[in-house]
Amino acid sequence: MKVLVTGAAGFIGRHLVELLRLRGRVGTQAVQALAVADQHLGDLPAGAVGLPGDLGSRPVRESVVGFAPDLVFHLAAVPGGAAEEDYALGRRVNLDATLALFECLARRERPPVVVYASSIAVYASGERGPITPLTPLRPPLTYGAHKLACEVLLADFSRRGLLDGRSLRLPGIVARPRAHSGLASAFMSELLHALANGERCRCPVSAQATAWWMSAWCCADNLLRGAALAVSGDDGARAWPLPVLRLSIAQVVDALAQRYGQDRQALVEYAPQPALEAVFGRYPVLDDKASRALGLSDDGSPQALIANALTRTAPRGFVPQVSLLI
Amino acid sequence: MKVLVTGAAGFIGRHLVELLRLRGRVGTQAVQALAVADQHLGDLPAGAVGLPGDLGSRPVRESVVGFAPDLVFHLAAVPGGAAEEDYALGRRVNLDATLALFECLARRERPPVVVYASSIAVYASGERGPITPLTPLRPPLTYGAHKLACEVLLADFSRRGLLDGRSLRLPGIVARPRAHSGLASAFMSELLHALANGERCRCPVSAQATAWWMSAWCCADNLLRGAALAVSGDDGARAWPLPVLRLSIAQVVDALAQRYGQDRQALVEYAPQPALEAVFGRYPVLDDKASRALGLSDDGSPQALIANALTRTAPRGFVPQVSLLI
Repeated sequence: MKVLVTGAAGFIGRHLVELLRLRGRVGTQAVQALAVADQHLGDLPAGAVGLPGDLGSRPVRESVVGFAPDLVFHLAAVPGGAAEEDYALGRRVNLDATLALFECLARRERPPVVVYASSIAVYASGERGPITPLTPLRPPLTYGAHKLACEVLLADFSRRGLLDGRSLRLPGIVARPRAHSGLASAFMSELLHALANGERCRCPVSAQATAWWMSAWCCADNLLRGAALAVSGDDGARAWPLPVLRLSIAQVVDALAQRYGQDRQALVEYAPQPALEAVFGRYPVLDDKASRALGLSDDGSPQALIANALTRTAPRGFVPQVSLLI
Repeated sequence: MKVLVTGAAGFIGRHLVELLRLRGRVGTQAVQALAVADQHLGDLPAGAVGLPGDLGSRPVRESVVGFAPDLVFHLAAVPGGAAEEDYALGRRVNLDATLALFECLARRERPPVVVYASSIAVYASGERGPITPLTPLRPPLTYGAHKLACEVLLADFSRRGLLDGRSLRLPGIVARPRAHSGLASAFMSELLHALANGERCRCPVSAQATAWWMSAWCCADNLLRGAALAVSGDDGARAWPLPVLRLSIAQVVDALAQRYGQDRQALVEYAPQPALEAVFGRYPVLDDKASRALGLSDDGSPQALIANALTRTAPRGFVPQVSLLI
């Protein structure tokens, strides 16, 4: 069983590689955590191999074909804000390179399992909800449009029997590093870091703003579960939203204050920006029954979300818990 | 007002160019009906200009940019059967060239109206129906997957204010020329030609098989109406199925016998092929209320379908009827 992780040096990729390492799967011949990037790769997680370039380039694709993975986690992407600003970059990475990866993987004799990190950005913003499997998909950003197009293409490769694809729609994942990430949702992570550190925080949405939350460890665990999904194919579904905790900013602040002290409450200054509030402050109820039935899950509680989001070492619950394909 | 038609030499393109000509719009400086094709273009409809190559090539794209159309009908495509057999060809024409066209059109100051010929192939086959705007889209062929991906991309260009896109999902259009078309649904047209000519016909689906029907004149008329749609944008919808006549083969044969003589009934030999019956014999009810409310329409009756499908000159009703953008 050979495993390939694209975007292994990214925020979610690092957590995924670490879970693979803890399960004794990285650093061996069998697992290659591939950090594909055009730019500086930074420090790589233990066991990951850096591969400069992008998946649209022939040498990189040849490396992928040569490695011949049985299981692929495709995480490499340009985030939403950056892709909206630079259409050409977003197209090249989020659409072209993803399709190029699918095509070069589709040449294997036994179709590899492909877990594709899609996004809740495929849903229209401003839906009053609940969002169900029947909700029409109307991405409000080019990022989401490209993610949706790739979901459709991956489902088609799966129908043809060339890949065994599973698209998982990731919500906003916390707590990202505080450096500029190109994500419009960066304030969600910033809130956690600031209050944990006892710093003041200017929140660009209101206390009542509701969003969908998940920690990076929980997300990585779900990606691994995604690899082991028993996809029936009966209804042709190949894409699911990850189950989420739907929490208001006030609920998240309460959980932070519970953990770090009630003085944290006073550190938040609300300065709602209408544009951000419209996109990130009105998340409706998500009907995630189908995803939960498949074994995917959220962090469990606001308290667990905070604990999972702010620890650098994998929480015990995520290490040996799940029986996986790998 | 400058109008561009891609695929102008194709079956639907010819009917569209003829309707434009009858309305006094083709052959002038203002309208360019562009027949883009890699291969032999054949005889072009009056007023159409042949442009060898495909939209993925720079000289063709430069011609498009140079012409600077205000209204574009994008019909050029590789049909479903052929695209399923030759993935690379389908990808190049139905996905890459379409996106390249959108991108080069998106550079204009005033966003051009783009009427995109999508397909009912975006719907899963085997839906028990009714198919509504909430039905999940699960294309059963790569052709439909690429059409759906392009619908998503066109909606995104529209959201960005770079194009004013309208995707119309075309049903099987009759009566195509009897030459091999690469379409799995070719038998629908063959049935009409054979019975009109008093020839025997071997039908690969049962008499009870129900499909969605539309004549090429009606389709071309709908494309022109599509250009004039008042898209509210309120719900973000940018794609609609054309309204259809849902008829069994027996109903179509009855209408043919009514027009050409009851002896036609005996000319049909039914030899259902399970694979074809599954895809083309079980079309469910289509909830096309939203499309009809926008002014799109079907042929009116089985009798009108047959009359419209088998005439080479535009039926009177389609000529001056609609007040159009152009």
